[in-house]
Amino acid sequence: MPEPIEDFYAVIPAGGIGSRLWPLSRAETPKFLHDLTGSGVSLLRNTWDRLLPLAGPERIAVVTGKAHEQKVETELPEILDRNVFIESDPRESAAAIGLAAAILQRREPDVIIGSFAADHHISRTRAFEFAVQQAVAVARAGYICTIGIPPTEPSVGFGYIQLGGELEVEGAPMAAEVERFVEKPDLETARRYYADRSFLWNAGMFIGRADVLLAELAANEPELHAGLVEIAEAWDEPARRDEVVARVWPTLKKIAIDYAVAEPAAAKGRLAVVPGHFDWDDVGDFASLAKLISDGRPDRMSILGQNDRVLADESTGLVVSQTNRVIAVVGVEGLIVVDTDDALLVTTSEHAQRVKSVVGALQESGRGSVL
Amino acid sequence: MPEPIEDFYAVIPAGGIGSRLWPLSRAETPKFLHDLTGSGVSLLRNTWDRLLPLAGPERIAVVTGKAHEQKVETELPEILDRNVFIESDPRESAAAIGLAAAILQRREPDVIIGSFAADHHISRTRAFEFAVQQAVAVARAGYICTIGIPPTEPSVGFGYIQLGGELEVEGAPMAAEVERFVEKPDLETARRYYADRSFLWNAGMFIGRADVLLAELAANEPELHAGLVEIAEAWDEPARRDEVVARVWPTLKKIAIDYAVAEPAAAKGRLAVVPGHFDWDDVGDFASLAKLISDGRPDRMSILGQNDRVLADESTGLVVSQTNRVIAVVGVEGLIVVDTDDALLVTTSEHAQRVKSVVGALQESGRGSVL
Repeated sequence: MPEPIEDFYAVIPAGGIGSRLWPLSRAETPKFLHDLTGSGVSLLRNTWDRLLPLAGPERIAVVTGKAHEQKVETELPEILDRNVFIESDPRESAAAIGLAAAILQRREPDVIIGSFAADHHISRTRAFEFAVQQAVAVARAGYICTIGIPPTEPSVGFGYIQLGGELEVEGAPMAAEVERFVEKPDLETARRYYADRSFLWNAGMFIGRADVLLAELAANEPELHAGLVEIAEAWDEPARRDEVVARVWPTLKKIAIDYAVAEPAAAKGRLAVVPGHFDWDDVGDFASLAKLISDGRPDRMSILGQNDRVLADESTGLVVSQTNRVIAVVGVEGLIVVDTDDALLVTTSEHAQRVKSVVGALQESGRGSVL
Repeated sequence: MPEPIEDFYAVIPAGGIGSRLWPLSRAETPKFLHDLTGSGVSLLRNTWDRLLPLAGPERIAVVTGKAHEQKVETELPEILDRNVFIESDPRESAAAIGLAAAILQRREPDVIIGSFAADHHISRTRAFEFAVQQAVAVARAGYICTIGIPPTEPSVGFGYIQLGGELEVEGAPMAAEVERFVEKPDLETARRYYADRSFLWNAGMFIGRADVLLAELAANEPELHAGLVEIAEAWDEPARRDEVVARVWPTLKKIAIDYAVAEPAAAKGRLAVVPGHFDWDDVGDFASLAKLISDGRPDRMSILGQNDRVLADESTGLVVSQTNRVIAVVGVEGLIVVDTDDALLVTTSEHAQRVKSVVGALQESGRGSVL
């Protein structure tokens, strides 16, 4: 196990519900609180455990909503109070990560922060650690660094990062400049990227000196930056924090860090990338979950939950069982069944992306109590 | 409404569980106790109501198992005690109908009985009544008469009856001899029968003088006949019935009335048929139920149960909802979802026939508590 990196702070934004995983993920129990891989612990806890050797237990922060504060602390009993940053309402990733950057930079001016989603799945953690170590070295040299995942298929579900020229940074043998930062492509483009091999998936990991990240934010979104700095100045003064947060936070622009920081930095040649040669999955929908759990055997029915009460006859796909009911599935390929106490979802891998629109329809039709 | 037919007695065998409709149909609550059509009452009650104008309330008998006696009497509060015939264990249709014939014939030597399944769906009841009236006229002339349904598709799920020459019976203008009685055919044969138009579906309805039915049974299955007669002689003597039933019933051969009576009668030219020009469905499996409920609109999702908690997005088929859960189905054609408190079935219309084997597998694997 590596020694924790001295000037490094890990930040875990734990925000999104994961609507495409409804009815498993809910407003009350979002995706990051679930054990989606059968590992026995939640994705959030997995994320913490993965970052622990890199940052140490006192230098991992979580940014989350009020509604989840209690559950986050139950999952992570070791977390220090000062490392829990509560968003009074969700304002997207630039505000969440920017808040952490602004607070941590005030506490420790030269700190390097790395942001890692709370609800992704990663295996082969040695390779993950090596990628982060390199990214920190690149960040120390003044770049904002991301970790890109070599695609395993022509996915239209992720943004892509095009590799540029190699970077000469001590301790980061695989680092490169980012040529281009591209949004989710259409299938034809995705196929081209996949064949090209110079395109990597954007896994939403950003590592940079907090002051560099904030300077980039100031250049692109000055009002957002100013608001975050004002909040950060009051954050560690209990008497002032609540007033400033209540006044400023609701005014902050909702924007993804990709647009507010990463793309403009790429355009200026200040964004670097380290390829991450580990298994990564954002477990974005049930098709992706089915694939992950099937463990390379798509010809069978994968089961998450009460195995011995599921009977699959000539069927493949995924059954998520959160109740004690017997579940019999007969003759359906790529089936997705998610059985919870108050809601049942039946779809196929092919239509897994549509689940988000079902959530919208349930909300609109007054059945939001199950969301 | 017609006057009840004076010498006619209707018999309703209410036996089968309807395994292909699991988990809706169970040993405790077999198919005939369910409202499968959204009519508001059970199939058994529908059957009773349909026979009432033909036989009157005092001349409809039900043959059922001990386990269902109470529920049958709840469904049919008007039924006379003397018209409830309890089977101490299930011994198939020849024993069930033969028991009724033997008891009723002792009570009323010239009685004509008609046997009608408890769990079929029929609409256009005027046409049904007309068919039964004709069949009774044919039975009075000494034939055993069945009612055959003109096929609406080349089904492999039913036996077929081939029409022979016309019969000259007063009051039965559509009656014909039965040329041949054939078992469930393969698809190619079914297509031929369907094109031929002289083949009708065997809907399991038999009408005959009780003495004629018993004579046919005596000729083909003498031991079964002798046993039934022995039981019938003791039936109306409370002091003797239990002893005789306990001794004789368990020895009776298990055989379908088709083999024990109808086929041999057809071979002798003693089986007649009246075509029934009404809508008939045996509601044998979920594919058939889906079709029945869809009301000729297979392009939509049919719902049996809690309509307002089912959300179907780009899906067709059938959802049976017996719980209060929200059910969302996304992007599956011909889907069958049956949601009950302790068991969930997911399949497609195409595989509806396989449900019976699932029931077998659940039994074998020790999960019989949900059957």
